[in-house]
Amino acid sequence: MLNYEQQEKWSKIVPNWQSPINIETVHTIEISAKEKILTFDNKYQFINIVNKGNNLQYDGKGKAIIEGRTFDFKQLHFHFPAEHTIDEKSHPMELHFVHQNIIGQIAVVALFVELGEFSEELNSFFQDFPAIESEKEPFSATLGLDSLISSLKSGVYHYLGSLTTPPLVKNVEWWVIEKPITVSAQQLDKLKQRFNHGNAREIQPTNERSVIHYVLV
Amino acid sequence: MLNYEQQEKWSKIVPNWQSPINIETVHTIEISAKEKILTFDNKYQFINIVNKGNNLQYDGKGKAIIEGRTFDFKQLHFHFPAEHTIDEKSHPMELHFVHQNIIGQIAVVALFVELGEFSEELNSFFQDFPAIESEKEPFSATLGLDSLISSLKSGVYHYLGSLTTPPLVKNVEWWVIEKPITVSAQQLDKLKQRFNHGNAREIQPTNERSVIHYVLV
Repeated sequence: MLNYEQQEKWSKIVPNWQSPINIETVHTIEISAKEKILTFDNKYQFINIVNKGNNLQYDGKGKAIIEGRTFDFKQLHFHFPAEHTIDEKSHPMELHFVHQNIIGQIAVVALFVELGEFSEELNSFFQDFPAIESEKEPFSATLGLDSLISSLKSGVYHYLGSLTTPPLVKNVEWWVIEKPITVSAQQLDKLKQRFNHGNAREIQPTNERSVIHYVLV
Repeated sequence: MLNYEQQEKWSKIVPNWQSPINIETVHTIEISAKEKILTFDNKYQFINIVNKGNNLQYDGKGKAIIEGRTFDFKQLHFHFPAEHTIDEKSHPMELHFVHQNIIGQIAVVALFVELGEFSEELNSFFQDFPAIESEKEPFSATLGLDSLISSLKSGVYHYLGSLTTPPLVKNVEWWVIEKPITVSAQQLDKLKQRFNHGNAREIQPTNERSVIHYVLV
């Protein structure tokens, strides 16, 4: 019986659901979405770029409607190579759009990048960046994430995980866009040269988690 | 700079947002809701009752739509006295309707109980229960939570906290119905006699959390 006289001794051992994971498509739960689950204010406005040593962080503003709830866009950063894998297939890069809602829940939209056509929409993010670690500079760009993602006509994987950098905050909602966007070799190399040591966290055990695969109807 | 060669040494220190809390109404963020934020399948079906020593757990089935997302109803249990307080005002009892969605997020709807008129809707839950700890018995009842809560014409407090019993799982969405339901003294005494030692967790620090107050338009 639970001892209410010794509450300070209560156990706090809980499952450790971390990210990234390898998404095993045979084990995903497929759900047909009748309406768009993710919609984005067409005017994500970027204001700062921060050199984080082994990453770049693009701070910005915008609104996303995720399963009917409003989230504020906070920042974009990236990983070389991609952190999530699908059936152990890797991509050269993964973009993380980090959002938070009014009570503090975090939702990250992950977008894979592969080599291919030049990306006009993303070109602002493949430019020069502050040379010194921790340096912050004004950075002005806009990104129409809604049309960019819609144009992929992609499904989305959804599961509960964590941030992939310390403090590895748990209970982060992940929304991993199935199909990659393309950038040119010149675009990718600009950042890859600088971050060639890689900044992808190791794959974490899925530990009985449900991974949903939302597909468009 | 983050060391990707020593990922096992990364810090996991995060804010400890626990429940219950004292809701300070002057610090809540008021939002007018144009549509109902919580709707419940009118047929929550209860199937088992479990004697948990210092609580009773009523297992059941049902669906809730919470901010547009589908949650499965799992179980109902209670606390003497109420765990949440509003401006330090306490109620004699609090019911917890525990829900979980397909990716594992937990949402608890908390309903305060105060002394007053006999409750026909809740009467099934103020009856005999298994005498022995850990004993489970079939328990058949239905509860129209949607009409019960609608009839209160109440606002709802919303914040991010934890379960109030071990393992104190964090990132639980709390939906605390502002106005209490009433039960008769005879109804309350039936359970209170047995649980007179109390089973309320101590109030936890709010720690800069945002508490939303949704009001009906």
